[in-house]
This record gives sequence, structure tokens and C-alpha cells, in this order.
Amino acid sequence: MSPKITTELLKQLRQGMKNSKYVQEPVQAYIVPSGDAHQSEYIAPCDCRRAFISGFDGSAGTAIVTEQHAAMWTDGRYFLQAAHQMDNNWTLMKMGLKDTPTQEDWLVSVLPEGSKVGVDPFIIPADQWKRMSKVLRSAGHDLVPVKENLIDTIWTDCPQRPCKPLITLDLSYTGVSWRDKIVALRSKMAERKVMWFVVTALDEVAWLFNLRGSDVEYNPVFFAYAVIGMNTIRLFIDGDRMMDPPVREHLQLDSTLEPEFKIQVMPYGSILSELQAVGAGLSPKEKVWLSDKASYALTEAIPKAYRYLTPYTPICIAKAVKNAAETEGMRRAHIKDAVALCELFNWLEKEVPKGTVTEIIAADKAEEFRSQQKDFVELSFATISSTGPNGAIIHYKPVPETNRTLSVNEIYLLDSGAQYKDGTTDVTRTMHFGTPSAYEKECFTYVLKGHIAVSAAIFPNGTKGHLLDSFARSALWDCGLDYLHGTGHGVGSFLNVHEGPCGISYKTFADEPLEAGMIVSDEPGYYEDGSFGIRIENVVLVIPAETKYNFKNRGSLTFEPLTLVPIQMKMIDVNLLTEKECNWVNEYHQKCREVVGAELERQGRHEALQWLLRETEPLGRVQ
Amino acid sequence: MSPKITTELLKQLRQGMKNSKYVQEPVQAYIVPSGDAHQSEYIAPCDCRRAFISGFDGSAGTAIVTEQHAAMWTDGRYFLQAAHQMDNNWTLMKMGLKDTPTQEDWLVSVLPEGSKVGVDPFIIPADQWKRMSKVLRSAGHDLVPVKENLIDTIWTDCPQRPCKPLITLDLSYTGVSWRDKIVALRSKMAERKVMWFVVTALDEVAWLFNLRGSDVEYNPVFFAYAVIGMNTIRLFIDGDRMMDPPVREHLQLDSTLEPEFKIQVMPYGSILSELQAVGAGLSPKEKVWLSDKASYALTEAIPKAYRYLTPYTPICIAKAVKNAAETEGMRRAHIKDAVALCELFNWLEKEVPKGTVTEIIAADKAEEFRSQQKDFVELSFATISSTGPNGAIIHYKPVPETNRTLSVNEIYLLDSGAQYKDGTTDVTRTMHFGTPSAYEKECFTYVLKGHIAVSAAIFPNGTKGHLLDSFARSALWDCGLDYLHGTGHGVGSFLNVHEGPCGISYKTFADEPLEAGMIVSDEPGYYEDGSFGIRIENVVLVIPAETKYNFKNRGSLTFEPLTLVPIQMKMIDVNLLTEKECNWVNEYHQKCREVVGAELERQGRHEALQWLLRETEPLGRVQ
Repeated sequence: MSPKITTELLKQLRQGMKNSKYVQEPVQAYIVPSGDAHQSEYIAPCDCRRAFISGFDGSAGTAIVTEQHAAMWTDGRYFLQAAHQMDNNWTLMKMGLKDTPTQEDWLVSVLPEGSKVGVDPFIIPADQWKRMSKVLRSAGHDLVPVKENLIDTIWTDCPQRPCKPLITLDLSYTGVSWRDKIVALRSKMAERKVMWFVVTALDEVAWLFNLRGSDVEYNPVFFAYAVIGMNTIRLFIDGDRMMDPPVREHLQLDSTLEPEFKIQVMPYGSILSELQAVGAGLSPKEKVWLSDKASYALTEAIPKAYRYLTPYTPICIAKAVKNAAETEGMRRAHIKDAVALCELFNWLEKEVPKGTVTEIIAADKAEEFRSQQKDFVELSFATISSTGPNGAIIHYKPVPETNRTLSVNEIYLLDSGAQYKDGTTDVTRTMHFGTPSAYEKECFTYVLKGHIAVSAAIFPNGTKGHLLDSFARSALWDCGLDYLHGTGHGVGSFLNVHEGPCGISYKTFADEPLEAGMIVSDEPGYYEDGSFGIRIENVVLVIPAETKYNFKNRGSLTFEPLTLVPIQMKMIDVNLLTEKECNWVNEYHQKCREVVGAELERQGRHEALQWLLRETEPLGRVQ
Repeated sequence: MSPKITTELLKQLRQGMKNSKYVQEPVQAYIVPSGDAHQSEYIAPCDCRRAFISGFDGSAGTAIVTEQHAAMWTDGRYFLQAAHQMDNNWTLMKMGLKDTPTQEDWLVSVLPEGSKVGVDPFIIPADQWKRMSKVLRSAGHDLVPVKENLIDTIWTDCPQRPCKPLITLDLSYTGVSWRDKIVALRSKMAERKVMWFVVTALDEVAWLFNLRGSDVEYNPVFFAYAVIGMNTIRLFIDGDRMMDPPVREHLQLDSTLEPEFKIQVMPYGSILSELQAVGAGLSPKEKVWLSDKASYALTEAIPKAYRYLTPYTPICIAKAVKNAAETEGMRRAHIKDAVALCELFNWLEKEVPKGTVTEIIAADKAEEFRSQQKDFVELSFATISSTGPNGAIIHYKPVPETNRTLSVNEIYLLDSGAQYKDGTTDVTRTMHFGTPSAYEKECFTYVLKGHIAVSAAIFPNGTKGHLLDSFARSALWDCGLDYLHGTGHGVGSFLNVHEGPCGISYKTFADEPLEAGMIVSDEPGYYEDGSFGIRIENVVLVIPAETKYNFKNRGSLTFEPLTLVPIQMKMIDVNLLTEKECNWVNEYHQKCREVVGAELERQGRHEALQWLLRETEPLGRVQ
């Protein structure tokens, strides 16, 4: 993978930073955040401005370009990838390491006195604007909105914004109609005494209306905003997709409805002016509810006194707690996904020794097996198919330049998942197709111990996920090891594979408490740069736990694994496991065998079934 | 314990809230925070305004009085105590429970439109003012400073502010001279480009000048402020104690010194006007560093553009990392403290069965044994000597009305500590002088498992203490149990028994990372209202840990117990311990035996030595 040459682009950008066509006064620095106007993590090609200017195309990162410098902030998942993809014009800022300055502090340290720092107000979240502008202002600088996106001005072959057809989801998938979701939302609005709610996150729009799209790869969302009043519903969306009869019927656009459920469809681009009109027409005490991560541009459309900002919207919180229909869908999706992976691993075991399977071939084969399953839509993220040293690049995606051949001498890490109409999957397994070394087994077993410590944890109702993060690390810490990423993220139901407001990470504190029905991943790992990567990931459902006692009648919670794919036993050093951990592995494998075995049988996939039976034998403990 | 009758006092306070002598316009609510003008946790009698108005005298709590209501916010340690001490005029707001509103939200819910909420600007920390005034303002109310403290106006027999003599500490105790501390502080100030640093916390003033006092019971501090410039040192302190020759010599008040080390002594009460003068004389770019917990009054003295506020001051951070002299002092203090407790527990074992030992007698006896030790100064907090149901009152202090007699049928919990000139101690042991029930042993053993899980934890350099909190709870959580307080707090070196910026608690996120030399407590517990309380507390020192591997060369840390008092073996259900936990107990007891045994021998305390030897036999595991 050779880095992108950015010398000419940076020169053009720096000219734009001084060009009076775009800026009233020259800006001495320009920030290029990762997100789009909806603060999406995964973005459409037309929004990949940070990748365009720097070459680094990981899912998280912020670029800042000054007259002298170009710097990229990203986290531990991407240190290696970013270093490979960027040329010498760029300085990598490793977030999470002690000596790495924040973007604000760095700007203060490099900028000349009284500088202006520009950013596209549609791309920067309001909370981040506030934090940065405060620090910059106190150091004598100014954060200024630059209306025209300066990257777009130099991106001559920028792709079109996608506008793909929509999928409607009926009650058997969603459990709740969009009308009932609107009713529930309005009751939350009434509780907080707000008159308007602005839906800015793409997955929140999709969830609210029980619609899905494919405007962004891997995420079944579509470009839209919504503004919900106590008596009005406005949906801002482009294209002729609203002419599609099933969509019109689903949204009852042509029915005679109570006025409060009548959806007004408006152009996507009119959101700012419409919101400004709402803002101008507010009477005292009429508040407008926005996420504090909504764009600075939309937030500014509402006068400050009328804003009601929260870190998590009521939709985000409602969406996180899956109902029975969604939970059952997720279970079904995970069983189908396990079938595909049993097929894949059985195939790999036979093919890898021949020396013909590359990372890309393995990834494609995984997709092929998944696509054979009912209601398969697409992958849920770019498959991480990595062997040997590539496994240490935490969010690696094989490309021809880096594509390694799987062998019996290297660890293989596969982190993959799919979107099915009934649910979203995300699973990581680390395999060896020859004989792993004692050290590889040792590391794998520590990771497994961490995985089990979270999965089997029992904790009181009301516990926030970040309080469980250290459980995943304890066995690694004991030996001086660790991993530089969080332990788990929320998972959507046929929606984004990463979603808030819950998760398991040392990095967050403001996560919402875990509650029964929430779904998160449990994915500790261990990575050695240049050698190998290990990760074991299941998607798990929060469920009530039975305990011997019940302090203050609070009740307890634990996790049920939805992912049902065997954990490779040859990678486990059984003597490092406690009896309890051994039993966990055996019970987990027993469940894989029963549930996935029955489905393999049903689908007539006999060879994969034999593989599953072999891989789910009880662990033998050497005494 | 009968509650304080507050009807008349509340009537007087409510009159004050409307009296134009004190307020320009009537205030509809008046906030009475817990702290003094230095935001101390432990306060002098003249500052116990919240206890005066409500009767509740726990160490944490905020009272708010409106025309209709009187409400008290406190945390889980004090729910029972507050309920006992307050009359029906008061509503208890249980912080940490899901349905308890914040003070701001509660005010918004009860106040008539456009209300004014008053508070003494010297008592409320600036960060709290900011948070409250923002919420109140957005709901149409105003937070207003009331110069005259309204409690003081009705507190006719308010005691005098103490002004006791000072103790000077030489290098053998402090390891670093006050001049070198000033030099280090100024270098931190230069790093952050600030010209002034305002020392507002009492323990920070004491630490900086290597002085101790006794103005506040249990905390060896004295009422003072300091303002450190790059070339000036101003100490604001009252009384003739600065006339004391050893103090004058220690501070070199009469020596010919470089001007930048010349201390200007000024009256305590002149801090506000002096700081206002500093504020008025600042040139552009001259910043003043204050804790964001400094009082609103002092913070406002500096114009906003010139303030540099941080949650932890450089003194707070430097003070937390103990140097070799301080660490050795803490070790010595804990050995002496263990000697006193061996004497006490030996005495209790003989006396309790006679039925003559009350909680107060036991507490007095503990103090008597401690006071026999070299360099004993005073207790480090009010001894929690509690038996049976009193043990469930987490910060209980026996008084004649509640004083129970220790018996062979109840659990006894003793949480106590002392100030020695070489260190501060804080230790909790839970004992049974008869035969504990299986359930009591079970609960005790879960608490012990939690204690060990923290004490034996190995974690990477840079880890924040809050990431270890769940380790202490895991064994309890497994059975549906928990405790409603944090697991540990920083401990001063012959200073406050509670100090920042480190600790082990699920409640904080902004704690500073643990580093070698920091000292914290490790004190999980379990409490059953009306029945018993269990807590096991050691003070532990953060030390480097040797590990098999060393990921990213970060290095690892662990804890060394400084407290060396046996953990009662009859309370342990050995079968609930893992082999590793058993070994931890045996190694810990072996160390108590060797280190404290040698000191008991040296002091000729033969009977207590025999007790120690009996109590530190290796645990026998029933297979």
C-alpha cells in the first residue's frame, strides 16, 4: 500500500484558505472532520473528504491543515493503517497516547497570534464546535464557519450524492409501527416540554419511519432529515424514491389521515431554511430538541434560548432497546450468519493448506456463503480478512497491494458481518490452520478469558457498560498486555453495526445504563505490530440475570451471546482457564452445536455440520 | 438519636430570604452547601451551617430551602443517618438513585416562574455555580450571590473561627523544602503560561509551605490562602501564630532572601480585595490559575478572560505522588497504627464477652492505644465504631443515644485512623467475637474477594482508578449484592484522610491516572439496613509491577498494602476463595506477622504479639 501523494492537493487547499471567494478573511487552519452532515461514522463516497485530502480512509480521523502543517488525529485501531496511507506531508497524532495533544491544544501551539480556524458548519457537530471554539477563543484565535466546503472546491471528480430506492419494513420485523413510534416520541417531547424534535442522524430517521435504504455502503440508511412537531411531521428527502408505491403506502402518503400523522415530504436541501423558519416562529417557552452532536449549522438555526440539547436523543435510546420482534430477528440473523461461517471455516480448513487462498478470496467466500442465506441484504462493514502481520492492523481491509495468502504458519483473523432484513451481525474469529505456537495460544487464551469475563458478567440494573470494560482486560493486564480499543459497541437491528447510546469502553463515561433488550458486541483483542492480531467477538443481548440475592430489589443483568460460531479450540491453552471458564466454553459450544446444527441440518449442509460437530467437542482439561 | 426540630429556624431563614437588609430582591430559594470557603470536606464548627439548619451532620450534603420546601441531597453513605437526624420539615433526596432529581431539576420543578435562588458566593464552588446557574437561567430563574450568609444571620451562638498554633515539618518528613515546592510550582505555571496561582484548598496551602495546623478537627490544616506570583509569595493567614519563632524561622520571614522567596504575610480576610487588585492590574495575556472548585467569589475577582481554571491544581497533583520520605513515613505510621489495633482487638476479644464494652468505649480505647504511639497527633476522622444494625449506617459515629454494647452475637465494624507526624492512617476491620452465621461469612468473603481483586490488580501505567472499581464489586454482583459507595479515596501524608485527584470509584471519570507513589484506600463493603455492615479497608501504595510481558513498553502498576492489620479468619468462608485469593491472605498475614510482630516485640507488647501470631496462622482450605 503506497501512500497518497498530497503535496499538490495541500497546496490547492492552502490557496482556498486564502481565497476571498470562499472566506471573508484568510483562515490559517482548516479542519476536515470525518463525518458527513449527519455525523455518520460510515459515509458515502461523496463525503469522504478527509480520505480525499490525506489518503487515510479509516472510519475515524480528523485532519487539520495549517499553512505549515498537516496533521491527522486517529485512534489505536488505525495507527498502522494511517501511517501506511499518508505521505510525508502528514503528521500522525495518536489519540489515546499520553503525549498526544488534543486538536485544540495543537492548534494553539502552532498557530500565529489571532488566527482564524475554518470548518464546514454542516460537518462539525455542535458540541465539538463549542469545545474547540472555547479553547481557541481563550488563546486569542477564532473558529469560523466556512460555508463552501474547501475540499469540495478542489475535488474535481467528486462522486454524486447517492439516492437509492427504499425498503419498507413491516411489523413482523419492527414490532412497532412508525405511527406508534411518533406517538411515543411526542410523549417524550411532552415530558421534556419541547415542541419540536429534529432528527439528524440517518439511522434515527430510518428507524423512526421503519424504512431502510442503501445510500451508504454497509449501513441501510438514506439521506434524509425529519422535523417532528406535536402536530406535524416533515421528512426532508430527495429523489423519486418517494414516488415508489410501496413507500407511499407504507407512509400512508395518499391516505386520509389525522393531520398529526400526515407526513409532509420536502427537499433534502431545504432543511436549513425550514429550520430557520421554525426557529424564527417560536413563541417563548417553545423549545426545539436536537442532539448536541447535530451539525453546528442546524443547531445555529434555532436561537440559543430555544434549544434543548441532549447527548442522546429519545430515538437513540428507544432504538437501543430491542423489542421482541427485533430480538427474534437478531437471533435468526445470527443463526444464518453462523451457518455461513461454518461453511466458510470448513472450506478454509480444506483450502488453506493448498496455498491458494488469499485474504481477498477468503473475504469473498465469506460474502458468498452469507449471500446464500435468506433475507441477506449486504455486508454490515468491510470484511476484515487478515493473516499474520496484517491482523495487527485493527481495522484492516485487504486490497491487492496488501493481500496475503493464508497459510498453515500464520494466525488468521476474520471480523465480518452482514445485514439481513431481520438483523445485523458482527463476529470475529481468530483461527490457525496449522499448529499455533505456545505464545500465540497463551495470548489467545488471555483474550478468551477477557471475552468470557464480560459475557458471563452479572451486574446490577442501571450499570453503565464502561464499568465492565476492565473485566475484558484483567487477564491481559496480569501479564503486562492490553489492547488499544474499546471492548464493545451497540449494534443496530438491520441498521448501523455501530450505534449508541450504550457500549463497553474505558473511553466513555456518558454512555446510557445497560438495560434488558440492548445489544452490544464483546470483542477484546491482542495485537503485536508486525506479527499477528487476535480478537474474539460475539454480539450479545442484555438479559435479566437470576441471582442468589437481590440487593435493594434492583435486579441484575447479564449477557446472552447471539453469535453462535465455535471458538477454535486448538488456539486455547486449556490450562490457563479456570473451571468456570472451561464450563462457559463447553456450554457455549453445546449451544452452537444444537442451534446452528439444527439449521445446518435443515439446510442440508452436511459437511459444514460435520465441521461444527468436530469443533464443538467438550474441552479436555489437562490436570 | 432524635431529629433536630427545625420549624422555627426555617421560619427565620425564610424571613431572611425576604429581608431587604440581606437581599436586594427576595430570593425564593436558598442553597446551603456542605463546604466552607475552601471547599473543604471536613469543616470547622463555625462552618457547619448545613448541619445547623437541618440537624444532618454527615460529611456530605446540600440543603435547599424554598418558601414551601426544605430538601437535603446526600449520598448512599448517609441515607440512614440523614433520615434519623432530620425532622419532618425535610425531604431526603437520595443521590445516586435513579429517580432522585438533581438540585437544579428539583428547583425548576418547584419554583414559581422567574424565581431568584440565593447562595453565599464564598461557599459555592465556581464550577457548581456555573452548572446550576445555566440550568436555572434556561428555565427562567436566576442564581444570585447573597453576600451576607443567611444562616450566620440566624445562628446566634455560632462558634468562633479557630486560629490554632502551627506545626513546622522538616525535610525528614516532607522530603522537599517549601522553596523547592515553590520553584516546581512556578515551573508548572511557566509551562501553562500563567503568571499567578491562587491556592484556595487548605491542604494545598499546608502542603506547599510544609506547615500543619489544627483549625479543623482531624485534618491538620489551618485557615489560609496563598497567592503565588512568578516573583512574589503572599500568604493570607490570621492570628499571632505567624509570630511563633519556629514558624518564622521555617518560613525564613526574618532572613535576607532572594525577593522571589520572600513571603508577604497578609490578613486572611484581605484575600478578596487583594485578588481583585491582582485582577484589575493584569496586562493582556497574564493569566491567573485557579481550581475550578475555588469559590465563586474568588473566581469572579479575576476577569473571565484572565482566568485559567483546571479541575486539579498542580499542587493537588504533586501532593498526590508521595516521595521517598513521605512513603517511608506512611509505612512507619501504618506499623504503629497496626500495633495499636493489635492491642485493641486483643483487648476486645477478652472484654466483649463480659458485656461491658460499648461502641464509644471501644472507640475511646482505640484512640488510647493509638495515642501511645510515637508522633501521634490526633485521629484522622471520627471513629466509626458500630455493631449490629449500626454497622449499616455507613458513616456512623457512636453517640450516647445510639451507643450499642458489643456482643458475641453481632458483627462489629471499626473504621478508624490517626494522624501521626509521619503519616495518616485509615483502616477498617469487621470482626465477630462469637460465631458468625454462614450468611455473614458468605457476605464477608465476597467483600474480601473484592478487596483482594483491587489490591492484587495489575494494570498499565496511565490507568485511571475508576477503571478498577468494578473489580471490587464483581464477587458481590455475581450474587446480586453491591454497596452504594466508591471503593477508594486518595490519602494525604499527615494531611487530609480524603484527598484528590486519584481514587477508585464508579462515580468519577475525571480522576487523574494512578502513578507509582500515589496512595489510595481499598474499601469495598456490604451493608444490610437494620442488620449489619461489613467493610474491609486497607490503605495501599501504588507501586511498579513486574509482568511477564510489557506491551508498548508502558510498564505496569499494582498496589502494596500499607495497612498491616490481620483480617479476621473466622469471618472467612475459605471454600469461596480461589487458591490465588487464599495465597494472598496468607502472604498478607505473613507480612503483618513479620513487620508488625517485630514492632510489637520492640515495644514489649507481648500479649498483643501473641494475638497477632494467632490471627496470622495460614488459612486452612477444606478440600
